[in-house]
Amino acid sequence: MRVLGIDPGLTRCGLGVVDGRPGRAGMVAVGVIRTPSDRDTGERLLYLEDNLTTWVRRFEPDVVAIERVFADVNVASVMTTAHATAIALLVAAKAGVPVAFHTPTEVKAAVTGDGRAGKAQVTQMVTSILKLTEQPRPADAADALALAICHTWRGGTEIRYAAAAARAGGPR
Amino acid sequence: MRVLGIDPGLTRCGLGVVDGRPGRAGMVAVGVIRTPSDRDTGERLLYLEDNLTTWVRRFEPDVVAIERVFADVNVASVMTTAHATAIALLVAAKAGVPVAFHTPTEVKAAVTGDGRAGKAQVTQMVTSILKLTEQPRPADAADALALAICHTWRGGTEIRYAAAAARAGGPR
Repeated sequence: MRVLGIDPGLTRCGLGVVDGRPGRAGMVAVGVIRTPSDRDTGERLLYLEDNLTTWVRRFEPDVVAIERVFADVNVASVMTTAHATAIALLVAAKAGVPVAFHTPTEVKAAVTGDGRAGKAQVTQMVTSILKLTEQPRPADAADALALAICHTWRGGTEIRYAAAAARAGGPR
Repeated sequence: MRVLGIDPGLTRCGLGVVDGRPGRAGMVAVGVIRTPSDRDTGERLLYLEDNLTTWVRRFEPDVVAIERVFADVNVASVMTTAHATAIALLVAAKAGVPVAFHTPTEVKAAVTGDGRAGKAQVTQMVTSILKLTEQPRPADAADALALAICHTWRGGTEIRYAAAAARAGGPR
């Protein structure tokens, strides 16, 4: 399963592509889209759409995993994140790629075993799991890879459940 | 000046097109986009993008006026509204149409003289200002027309200021 993890944002949108199955994951690509801060929000969203579309076309993910954000932090940053998330949803829908959401707690728990792990610990575990020779930077890129790993772990489990259910003659 | 007012939403996105200048306004079109509630958010955003694009192409507004929403109400509805707003910004940017934001208080004050006016009062004043034979429904459609009227009033003032400044040899 190939997963494109997206840590949505306008200033920095983290992207990480991972091929894997539960217990195994290999990095295909990692990067960050930075939209021009001197432009209107609409132009920045257009820029984001173009670049996300390029990533989806180039890497052809089976699923897009997006960080689910809650509105309990800074109001302005939540609105911007929600705007960027909408563009990611739109691009995935246009490409016919299903989308899964994971909370930051789920992602941290999946890669470190601790839902309250810090950014440094997440980056360290991502580097270790993917056997990278150096830590992915910035943190948004590492977060996107962590999201993709998380979905590979969890998504894979769901697929195994589905296969078991099918063998048992239950609902698919 | 032709203004497309957009009251962003996924369940109902209100649209109102108004031609006018300060003190005068005539309705060109009014409507509501309802996206299918049984579909994924991404598909609903895609549907919204398609329909908004059709409106922008058909009516060729000089400016798009969008309601600025604050995150002090229901969290889930704010996220959905922010998603719909992002699509409106994207569609306007693709068409090269500038976007202006107005708060609900500004809109209510512009059409009724009272920033705390209720929905019924706003609808009544919109009907009166545009000399409509019946009240626009649902409320989202009336709100979109109110937004467009508000921008016609306020935007027109800014344009007059700019013209006066140009005559005076000041900055444009």
